[in-house]
Amino acid sequence: MTTAAEPPVASRRGRPGYDQDAVLDVAVAVFNEHGFDATPISALADRLGLSKSALYHHFDSKEQLLGVALEEALGALEGVLVEPGATEGTATERLAFVLRGAVRVLVARLPYVTLLLRVRGNSAVERSALERRRAFDHAITALVREAQAEGSVRADIEASVATRLVFGMVNSIVEWYRPTGPEGADELAGDVLAVALDGLRTR
Amino acid sequence: MTTAAEPPVASRRGRPGYDQDAVLDVAVAVFNEHGFDATPISALADRLGLSKSALYHHFDSKEQLLGVALEEALGALEGVLVEPGATEGTATERLAFVLRGAVRVLVARLPYVTLLLRVRGNSAVERSALERRRAFDHAITALVREAQAEGSVRADIEASVATRLVFGMVNSIVEWYRPTGPEGADELAGDVLAVALDGLRTR
Repeated sequence: MTTAAEPPVASRRGRPGYDQDAVLDVAVAVFNEHGFDATPISALADRLGLSKSALYHHFDSKEQLLGVALEEALGALEGVLVEPGATEGTATERLAFVLRGAVRVLVARLPYVTLLLRVRGNSAVERSALERRRAFDHAITALVREAQAEGSVRADIEASVATRLVFGMVNSIVEWYRPTGPEGADELAGDVLAVALDGLRTR
Repeated sequence: MTTAAEPPVASRRGRPGYDQDAVLDVAVAVFNEHGFDATPISALADRLGLSKSALYHHFDSKEQLLGVALEEALGALEGVLVEPGATEGTATERLAFVLRGAVRVLVARLPYVTLLLRVRGNSAVERSALERRRAFDHAITALVREAQAEGSVRADIEASVATRLVFGMVNSIVEWYRPTGPEGADELAGDVLAVALDGLRTR
């Protein structure tokens, strides 16, 4: 449902056929294509083949829609941090688990994470999302610092810089990865982990 | 550049004059803040305290201004590829040189590279910039492939994926690096090189 979708059943009012998730998928695709601020709610309704009032049946406002979309991405990323793999074992094992989990979330929810990464803080909803991204980054930085204290991660790079560089790599996936390409999520996660932990250079 | 009616070095309101570089600096800052498409030329003129016609004395169009700004970033990045360090030595030495050079360009021209990285191909100028970014990426991928053939870079990751991951790390710098912070360009380049080539894990 990424292009000018026609709802499966076309009645004049209400046009059943979209549930909230489907509306969200289309909305996120349109926001990524044109930018959230540049997308009027009427353009969204047009793309869905819905009237504005039918769209408002699903969501109170464009802002609320954005909030639900960002929650999809943030909730999934935060979810990785509370899985057993992120809370048990050495710091390096936990760091590897979290990196792998973050890549999987990115691949599984590519458009949603793309939207999240483009948020600049233009509204309360966006600022709250940025705040949660920062908390996520801080959790990873703390993990890197722990792994440095363990002696398993190099201590000559500041933990926050190391975290940003590695997540720069992870987040870049939204710019170039296409799920239809030759590389699956697990293989991609393996590559990210290999470069992040051991680098490109052969031993 | 359409008329000589406005002198280049003094606006009607007695503000100090702008040369083309200064206009460009302000324009790039405004584009990065609000988005190129969302910035009307009048907003740019307001920000500069210039009339629109005075602004047109410097640039024919917003599009041309964008082209000159993107050239600043692309020309500098492409310049790294033709320096002796990028053309002499082993492939790994050249790769290290190019990565270090790219980080230095990013830090030295942060707003310009930020603008470049946000280009999505909405116009001929943008598409030409994307084409040159692709050519730059291909040159690096070829270098990674050469280093793999040398045996100095791991061959279990596809060269184009390795390049994208490492440049994901490099390009992320525009999102978080502030030149006023504690870390200088050389130290940052050293950190990028350390993670890209040897990873976070201690030996």
